[in-house]
Amino acid sequence: MEGIDYLAEERKKAEFNVDEMKIVWAGSRRAFEVSDYISKLVADDPGFSKEERTMLPRKELFKNTLRKSAYSWKHIIDHQLSEEEAERLRYFVDEPAFIDSHLGVFIPAIKGQGTKEQLKKWLPLAYKMQIIGCYAQTELGHGSNVQGLETTATFDPRTDEFVIHSPTLTSSKWWPGGLGKVSTHAIVYARLITDGKDHGINGFIVQLRSLEDHKPLPGITVGDIGTKFGNGAYNTMDNGVLRFDHVRIPRDQMLMRVAQVTKDGKYVQSDVPRQLLYVSMVYTPQALVTYASGALSRAVCIATTYSAVRRQFGSQNGGQEIQVINYKTQQSRLFPLLASAYAFRFVGEWLKWSYTDVTQRLQANDFSTLPELHATTAGIKSLTTTATADGIEECRKLCGGHGYLCSSGLPELYAVYVPACTFEGDNVVLLLQVARFLMKTVSQLSSGKKPMGTIAYMGKSEHFMQCHSDVEQAKDWLKPSAILEAFEARAARMSIACAQNLSKFENPEEGFQELAPDLVEAALAHSQLIVVSKFIEKLQQDIPGEGVKQQLEVLCSIYALFLLHKHHGDFLATGYITSKQGLFANEQLRALYTQVRPNAVSLADAFNHTDHFLGSILGRYDGNVYPKLYEAAWKDPLNESDVPDGFDEYIRPLLKQQLQTARLWKINLSYKLI
Amino acid sequence: MEGIDYLAEERKKAEFNVDEMKIVWAGSRRAFEVSDYISKLVADDPGFSKEERTMLPRKELFKNTLRKSAYSWKHIIDHQLSEEEAERLRYFVDEPAFIDSHLGVFIPAIKGQGTKEQLKKWLPLAYKMQIIGCYAQTELGHGSNVQGLETTATFDPRTDEFVIHSPTLTSSKWWPGGLGKVSTHAIVYARLITDGKDHGINGFIVQLRSLEDHKPLPGITVGDIGTKFGNGAYNTMDNGVLRFDHVRIPRDQMLMRVAQVTKDGKYVQSDVPRQLLYVSMVYTPQALVTYASGALSRAVCIATTYSAVRRQFGSQNGGQEIQVINYKTQQSRLFPLLASAYAFRFVGEWLKWSYTDVTQRLQANDFSTLPELHATTAGIKSLTTTATADGIEECRKLCGGHGYLCSSGLPELYAVYVPACTFEGDNVVLLLQVARFLMKTVSQLSSGKKPMGTIAYMGKSEHFMQCHSDVEQAKDWLKPSAILEAFEARAARMSIACAQNLSKFENPEEGFQELAPDLVEAALAHSQLIVVSKFIEKLQQDIPGEGVKQQLEVLCSIYALFLLHKHHGDFLATGYITSKQGLFANEQLRALYTQVRPNAVSLADAFNHTDHFLGSILGRYDGNVYPKLYEAAWKDPLNESDVPDGFDEYIRPLLKQQLQTARLWKINLSYKLI
Repeated sequence: MEGIDYLAEERKKAEFNVDEMKIVWAGSRRAFEVSDYISKLVADDPGFSKEERTMLPRKELFKNTLRKSAYSWKHIIDHQLSEEEAERLRYFVDEPAFIDSHLGVFIPAIKGQGTKEQLKKWLPLAYKMQIIGCYAQTELGHGSNVQGLETTATFDPRTDEFVIHSPTLTSSKWWPGGLGKVSTHAIVYARLITDGKDHGINGFIVQLRSLEDHKPLPGITVGDIGTKFGNGAYNTMDNGVLRFDHVRIPRDQMLMRVAQVTKDGKYVQSDVPRQLLYVSMVYTPQALVTYASGALSRAVCIATTYSAVRRQFGSQNGGQEIQVINYKTQQSRLFPLLASAYAFRFVGEWLKWSYTDVTQRLQANDFSTLPELHATTAGIKSLTTTATADGIEECRKLCGGHGYLCSSGLPELYAVYVPACTFEGDNVVLLLQVARFLMKTVSQLSSGKKPMGTIAYMGKSEHFMQCHSDVEQAKDWLKPSAILEAFEARAARMSIACAQNLSKFENPEEGFQELAPDLVEAALAHSQLIVVSKFIEKLQQDIPGEGVKQQLEVLCSIYALFLLHKHHGDFLATGYITSKQGLFANEQLRALYTQVRPNAVSLADAFNHTDHFLGSILGRYDGNVYPKLYEAAWKDPLNESDVPDGFDEYIRPLLKQQLQTARLWKINLSYKLI
Repeated sequence: MEGIDYLAEERKKAEFNVDEMKIVWAGSRRAFEVSDYISKLVADDPGFSKEERTMLPRKELFKNTLRKSAYSWKHIIDHQLSEEEAERLRYFVDEPAFIDSHLGVFIPAIKGQGTKEQLKKWLPLAYKMQIIGCYAQTELGHGSNVQGLETTATFDPRTDEFVIHSPTLTSSKWWPGGLGKVSTHAIVYARLITDGKDHGINGFIVQLRSLEDHKPLPGITVGDIGTKFGNGAYNTMDNGVLRFDHVRIPRDQMLMRVAQVTKDGKYVQSDVPRQLLYVSMVYTPQALVTYASGALSRAVCIATTYSAVRRQFGSQNGGQEIQVINYKTQQSRLFPLLASAYAFRFVGEWLKWSYTDVTQRLQANDFSTLPELHATTAGIKSLTTTATADGIEECRKLCGGHGYLCSSGLPELYAVYVPACTFEGDNVVLLLQVARFLMKTVSQLSSGKKPMGTIAYMGKSEHFMQCHSDVEQAKDWLKPSAILEAFEARAARMSIACAQNLSKFENPEEGFQELAPDLVEAALAHSQLIVVSKFIEKLQQDIPGEGVKQQLEVLCSIYALFLLHKHHGDFLATGYITSKQGLFANEQLRALYTQVRPNAVSLADAFNHTDHFLGSILGRYDGNVYPKLYEAAWKDPLNESDVPDGFDEYIRPLLKQQLQTARLWKINLSYKLI
């Protein structure tokens, strides 16, 4: 029955103002309005339908993405969208495409690394889409380690050109999005060689395809790298392979903001501080944190909605079974993820602010806060993307068997999300970077250098090495100060323990390698502290709306106590809490689940996801799940006929042959009753 | 370069006899020989190629599976395979298909629940494939809770028939494999109603399709439920939906071994003990444990091989980079999974033995060991399938970006494996069953009933409540007795703590619901103890082959200490170990990683996987990864042409229109240098 809200009763239970929560989630009233407007624009336009996406073969899928990209661009023009609105449009269209690489990576790279003259020449072409570009860094044999790239750009002073070349198979560019089939240009990272000398990795703008017939230019071999994980998902993107056979480009297509090669082949560094490049490298990982909260919120919304719809066991006298959201096992898996989505939202918001702050300082030649931003971003990116990928899968499992159907939306969400754990820095490599920062901080403590910002707590490390939690009953764990000190003490003690163990090694680098797994754990503890503390800080702000702050307080406590329970070994091992205090935390956590239960569906509503964006029958706003699942099944290509293709060739002969010679059944007829 | 083994150097490092280890892995020399023979038979036959599977659209994919199934059947006939060999063949063909449901579920269900007359009638038809059957239990609205099924089978004494009917949409059968497009018959579980009285769930053999033209019979609506997670994967199976509109079947098509309906409509229970049915319900979960070790071993083999091939960072003076398998972070994630594969193999072997043992006892009317088998199987199935699913994804991540390509084999392996966490009992629901068994055991301790078998340790619970680990240095953790006592003490204390907390509730069922998350943790601790103890028991056997036992001892210690580290909160909280002893465990674990490192590739070789079975370029036995990845890319349908379909319609217009009216680029040209 269309139009009925099967979850109306659930929604009545909410103890807070959902509309106000939507604004908190969006970050501001304006951000809410933009997202709300654009998401509905997309949802209401059948041109952006995603319904058949997971069933399309690769070529049709890709062609359809090209169509949607052109259609998006038309929307951007027709509706005169601003850059912010255009970004929202791409977000809600929800289909990875070359246009993301072009607008999201190619253009920013030119902006960040080009000279003023280069910007003047290339940006208008790019913004008008007269050229389409991608970012060609990684190679078949080289991922995170940029310094290991093998592609060469050799300066030829006779012709004032660079010769771009792929000297080995492993130097083939591999993975760049938009490269395989669409991009006309690429920013190619290559080892700059002038006069036989290797000057390391620099960026070059290289044309790949004819602007007339789109054919690869001479010396260029380019194609798609093949099918990736999942149905639909990232298969809408033409991640590409690219090889150069001595391709020549003019000298002025080297991106020369930071270093240049002169006409006579001299390598000259500019006076632009390198830090300006580093900060731009932090931009994308920073943005990934907000994307993490977005992706997790989608999975949580689906699982929460369906957990309220689905009933299982516990019926008495033939009555209705129990809603699965009422089971404590379901709550103990789902509600921490609901809380995590909010936690990641707020830390993402704060990180965005930090990024702006550091950028402004850099303009004033203050580089002091850059290393901290770098480490913080690495840690939070690692933590939030790993937790989100795992969380999406957990939400899928929380939907039972039906989560395995593509019509649940969850398989594709997982498959399209999970590369975030690898790109922009492998999550374990990133935590090792955080660990280096932490070890450096610890080593400077004795020199009296006062740690600032997210690492300020290290200044009180003497206190943390000996203090103990003063929690005496379960509800003491609701005090933000109790939580904060526990996470600070744990993080400080783990870092200091690592530093002490490192000091036993003669060769510090060898020690770092040997103790890497412990260092990763210390880095994670530090990063979790940041997420918890930023949630707590958020709650110190003025947050309007009836009951809104109270709900967020509950979620903040759930997030922190869930982590405390999950990692209780850390808290116990460092001696900060006793096992009894650990039990109190667990007891309080259970009580919080009960508190959040009546609000759960509304807390998921506050994400303001449209049914289009969720793309999930299980997550439908109206809860009308089963009739729609049933309806959707018949759309599968296999159901085009009652009798499947191949019946005559492969099934009928089985049924009609009387294979009396099969040893199999002879043996089995002599079965024994067990 | 074909024919070169790029990992020959790695293989030379092995400190044990790989051929002997292959036999240990297989379980016996005979099992090894059968698997080796069949796996090579399949691998060498191009008819079983899986190369394009992840690129095929659903209909082509499914048709190809029908072809392979018929081809498998032909092999079974031609080679006169035994039942064991036929099972191996299906395993190595490695493609879920209706034939699995038919041979693996339909036939066993008839065997287990049919009378002698029914067996005589139906088994020959089924074994000769004159009919093809499936197992129709779950419904759209009903999964794990069999008692909640809604389909009805109402006896009509006038015609001596049952009327099978789907009274609601949610009663539609949903998920059965082989149902959607192929099965001619199904065993349908329905609520038996005679004379207005509901006798609960019974099984019925129902014909679904005409044996002439394969069309659904009158009153039957049947189809496929749609696309599932992943490329290839379970989309080769026609999981189906089925509705009945008053379909009549003869009375003798009720499976009547345990209960029957007489001609005049009386419901009569036979004297066959119900326990005989219960034990057959344990068969599949039991077999899933061995499958878990198989699936995990494939992922581990791929990740280990590629970790030895792949190099990253750490090059000095332009030399080769470091093999990633040498990084401690890689080792600390990979080697515990390698150890887990072996651990699950041995517990699976033991569980199979237990199953046979209990079955034999049942035949002698000894039902005493059935509840323990049931709980043990539930716990081990839950533990191993969850760890395997997570482990496959971890292996994918350990392969970096390339793991995301379907050509790595890992995405499909994950997608096809992960439903094992849900089917044959949701893994959390199963742990709650274990917890009920544990709580019952604890409650009987005071009555003097001596716990036996896997639960025998509970008899020493008084000792475990107060004992402490006597580990004084890292290497003390190598003693099996130290490990065993630690796991026993942890499990006992967690169970007893749960029992004590439960006793505080007036209503025990309410307490069980409230404390369910803690009970799940206690059940997991108990199940982990079983896996660890069976590994230790395995090592007390005579194991021939140079160095074989030593390697297994290392793996056993890694498995146990990895768990101890992962759950060190449990061990600390119960007070059995001190945090210093926890650090010793961690120190020993690091040392063990170093020991296993030179043997890692050979320990993966011992799984004896063919390249066909692995289906992974990253896991190729010869390590010739990059040229083959490069080669495979060009086979993607997108690379059929240089210029993609859709270029003229959707890309050229973008490139050629000069969309000067786009607000987007106007704004952006006023960029500021950051």
